[in-house]
Amino acid sequence: MTTQTIGTAVLDRLHRLGVRHMFGIPGDYVLGLYKLMESSPIQHVATTREDCAGFAADAYARINGIGALCVTYCVGGLNTVNAIACAYAERSPVVLLTGSPGLSERARNPYLHHMVREFSTQREVFEKMTVAAVSLEDPVTAEREMDRAFAALLRYRRPIYLEIPRDMVHVPLAQTSHRHQTQGEPTDRAALSEALNEVRTMLESAKRPVILAGAEVGRFGLHDELTSLVERLNVPIASTLLGKSIIREDHPLYVGVYSGLVARDEVKEFVNQTDCLLILGSILSDVEDLDAHSALFSDGHTIHATADRVAIKHHRYDSILFEDFVKGLAAASLPSFPTPQLPAPYKPQEPMPPAQASVSLQGVFRHLDTVLHEKTLVIADVGESLFASVDLHVHRRFKFLSPAYYTSMGFAVPAAIGASFADSSLRPIVLVGDGAFQMTGSELSTAVRYKQAPVVIVLNNHGYSTEREILEGPFNDIHEWRYERICELIGGGQGSRVATHGEFVQTLAKALADPSQPHVINVLLDPADRSPAMMRLARRLAKRLSTDRP
Amino acid sequence: MTTQTIGTAVLDRLHRLGVRHMFGIPGDYVLGLYKLMESSPIQHVATTREDCAGFAADAYARINGIGALCVTYCVGGLNTVNAIACAYAERSPVVLLTGSPGLSERARNPYLHHMVREFSTQREVFEKMTVAAVSLEDPVTAEREMDRAFAALLRYRRPIYLEIPRDMVHVPLAQTSHRHQTQGEPTDRAALSEALNEVRTMLESAKRPVILAGAEVGRFGLHDELTSLVERLNVPIASTLLGKSIIREDHPLYVGVYSGLVARDEVKEFVNQTDCLLILGSILSDVEDLDAHSALFSDGHTIHATADRVAIKHHRYDSILFEDFVKGLAAASLPSFPTPQLPAPYKPQEPMPPAQASVSLQGVFRHLDTVLHEKTLVIADVGESLFASVDLHVHRRFKFLSPAYYTSMGFAVPAAIGASFADSSLRPIVLVGDGAFQMTGSELSTAVRYKQAPVVIVLNNHGYSTEREILEGPFNDIHEWRYERICELIGGGQGSRVATHGEFVQTLAKALADPSQPHVINVLLDPADRSPAMMRLARRLAKRLSTDRP
Repeated sequence: MTTQTIGTAVLDRLHRLGVRHMFGIPGDYVLGLYKLMESSPIQHVATTREDCAGFAADAYARINGIGALCVTYCVGGLNTVNAIACAYAERSPVVLLTGSPGLSERARNPYLHHMVREFSTQREVFEKMTVAAVSLEDPVTAEREMDRAFAALLRYRRPIYLEIPRDMVHVPLAQTSHRHQTQGEPTDRAALSEALNEVRTMLESAKRPVILAGAEVGRFGLHDELTSLVERLNVPIASTLLGKSIIREDHPLYVGVYSGLVARDEVKEFVNQTDCLLILGSILSDVEDLDAHSALFSDGHTIHATADRVAIKHHRYDSILFEDFVKGLAAASLPSFPTPQLPAPYKPQEPMPPAQASVSLQGVFRHLDTVLHEKTLVIADVGESLFASVDLHVHRRFKFLSPAYYTSMGFAVPAAIGASFADSSLRPIVLVGDGAFQMTGSELSTAVRYKQAPVVIVLNNHGYSTEREILEGPFNDIHEWRYERICELIGGGQGSRVATHGEFVQTLAKALADPSQPHVINVLLDPADRSPAMMRLARRLAKRLSTDRP
Repeated sequence: MTTQTIGTAVLDRLHRLGVRHMFGIPGDYVLGLYKLMESSPIQHVATTREDCAGFAADAYARINGIGALCVTYCVGGLNTVNAIACAYAERSPVVLLTGSPGLSERARNPYLHHMVREFSTQREVFEKMTVAAVSLEDPVTAEREMDRAFAALLRYRRPIYLEIPRDMVHVPLAQTSHRHQTQGEPTDRAALSEALNEVRTMLESAKRPVILAGAEVGRFGLHDELTSLVERLNVPIASTLLGKSIIREDHPLYVGVYSGLVARDEVKEFVNQTDCLLILGSILSDVEDLDAHSALFSDGHTIHATADRVAIKHHRYDSILFEDFVKGLAAASLPSFPTPQLPAPYKPQEPMPPAQASVSLQGVFRHLDTVLHEKTLVIADVGESLFASVDLHVHRRFKFLSPAYYTSMGFAVPAAIGASFADSSLRPIVLVGDGAFQMTGSELSTAVRYKQAPVVIVLNNHGYSTEREILEGPFNDIHEWRYERICELIGGGQGSRVATHGEFVQTLAKALADPSQPHVINVLLDPADRSPAMMRLARRLAKRLSTDRP
């Protein structure tokens, strides 16, 4: 076995953990790493912006189990802060690999280009939004440091930051007694057994148990265990908004998306009436509108497991890994329940619009629901793209992606690039508002470059419509673009604009039938058009915010 | 006088300090501030991305003396980290105004949308790259806190961060004994007098003094004092790369740009041979390649003043404000020198290319030099846009803007928007590479929206050419766009592509003659084309980096 350098040791671990593509833009402090990548099995994917590399790596990680990007010091890395923050908030295992000034040149001059304040400023920023942030500056400790970081990523499935000063990339690792180990502390088996017994006792005395599953189930690749648990218990399951599609939505026990802000009233009430709520892999955010002060929690009717800890009633276990808890549940001897009575599934009230009708959100989503299949991946940006999707049916797991909690605009187009690299058999359908498209839509360039074929549906309602619902003003207006003409700028893809429902149906059919290039459909909506989910959100937000107004 | 709220007090101070435009994008945590802005004298300028709002505010600040942007919590603010880092590194007085979750809603739920880790995470990030970062959460202390922040901005001319939780915007300031005071500690007059005496003594024994002026002279609005000092001493003046155009470049005492990496050999040698170097308003970065270890410093031949401190020989004064030091120098009784022999000004060796020749960097810059006048503002992005500009002559101060030290790609197009708002009489000519244009070129949308007319020259050499000079690989390739067709996407402006020198000359003339809209000129360069300055940089960088290679 040849001696590894700090650079090759990092790339080697990334590849062994499943990274086959590395998103990013080169820069002088990171050129050595890029050169190394050329002779590694990892393929570089050149994005146009670093934040887009971050979103692409995030989507890649959500599908592939781990994702990575490589960017230069500060001018590159600091452009990814929001994307890494998104991955941290939504618990996506992204590796941010970056360079920095060489240790030797730092001694010569305290002010090197791309520097902000201290040489360590970039690392200090990312300490705020990663589970491990290390600079590999010493061949004696580098291997332990990187393994500690990878262990944290695997333990929490959240981002890590790895920095290599440019003159350390080719430095051989020192021979030490360190043994390659990216696993952290194992689960305490006695604690797990105690917790599973508690769950059994709670279920045995429950009449209407419900499972609420969140995104972390997917981050740990536990879809099969979840489905198996649901079926063995024979209890209803809802998903969080961020966890949408964590179980196939045509499953007979699936109730719908539970999110206090946008859920249908029937789903919300059904879940709220449970006497035993098993929450797996979700934080309790304001998007779900389910908080630890609600009666379910204070009355001791909850089991709540995340990568951070397992909480049962009012106590918590810190020594049980999430993965082991879910696998333990799936394998445990637990009661089975009589087939439950579920709320009626969503049935749109209005008929499908006629072809000559103006295109509308309702028509777009009604029609979309008829064309989705096992191999379409819906990626929703924020706003109506996300809210209206709540009432979409997605037919298999891993078929819906959205930054539903952190809700950062501009996620969807770059995410489609990352998703296509993670699984080239999927066909992304991107739902994106006009404001979000103006932020990162030009990243479609990268889809053209790598011959991907996302279908991008621009829900063009001429403004920030979620904000219009909260507080209207001219600041919510957006300058009108001819979104479909982006294809002429980036030298590829097929653009169209549609004004009627019939045009939308026809154009989407053509786009789906052509997997040779990206498609951009500019959907000219009435600015006053709102989805039913947005109306529910507005009603609930207005109630919540009423105390904040002057 | 009516009682002010936390929100109105901040807007009022911003306006009194000179902010007439506020760049940014609204979001739910900051809508109250946007509503307040509607009834203030400050005009909101809607950009398409938050980082572009940051660059626009930075350019605005460089011209206007102060700039500001207003963005929402985390998903907005964290998109501006790189732009604020640029303003911090290059010492530009930018105010980042942002919202955050209401204090009351934080009590109800620890996980609110847009949150990363703690409620304070965004503020903690910006503490790393501002001279003051405060969250205005208490009506008793809010006024003191904001005034402390503004005083820091005025003292250092660097960015500050002001956060207002959304339920505090309309809270009236408490009546306290605080007196409105945005001035910090004044200069110690005795220290100033001592320092000026030292400078006089050093100059009296000097034979070849030289002034090197940097960007901070402009940040403090001290152009007239600098010119007066130069003329009274009758000594040669060079500018740093970041400070280019700090004195009009047709001034008889102006030597050229001194930057160790890209300066002409004649200028470099001329400055290095001084026996008394007076450095005003510049850090000693690797871009200047002038460091505290060089003989000039160790032999005690330097006077070096920045906003941080005044250093003379080997000691420093911490109680002298930069502004007072420069004004003191301009007013002091100092020796006058015989008219110096300056190095010959730059004269391109090759003749102007014929009209039918392929368009080249040399031809573009040769021709540009003939069309610049008092009202053109050259804004250079990084790479060739910046390096080739070193040999441009700029005819008046405030006519050249570039992120020459932090060198963040994508600065120039949004900076042109900010500059046009700061001084609508200026006509920006933007020099930008293909890579940088792909990052932020679509911000031209905002120029169309607000009827601005920058001339954007895309130096399209099909890749990251500075990096090609350091380490070549396919990772330096950029996907080809039809840059001129951006105008069709954003619904305004005139695009052209030019392949010959004659086409460039004609197209530029037409663009300059039409101030009604933006112009985008796609200049199709040979990928191997390099400016003389880039060749100098490559030669010097290769020498410096030779130790870092494997």
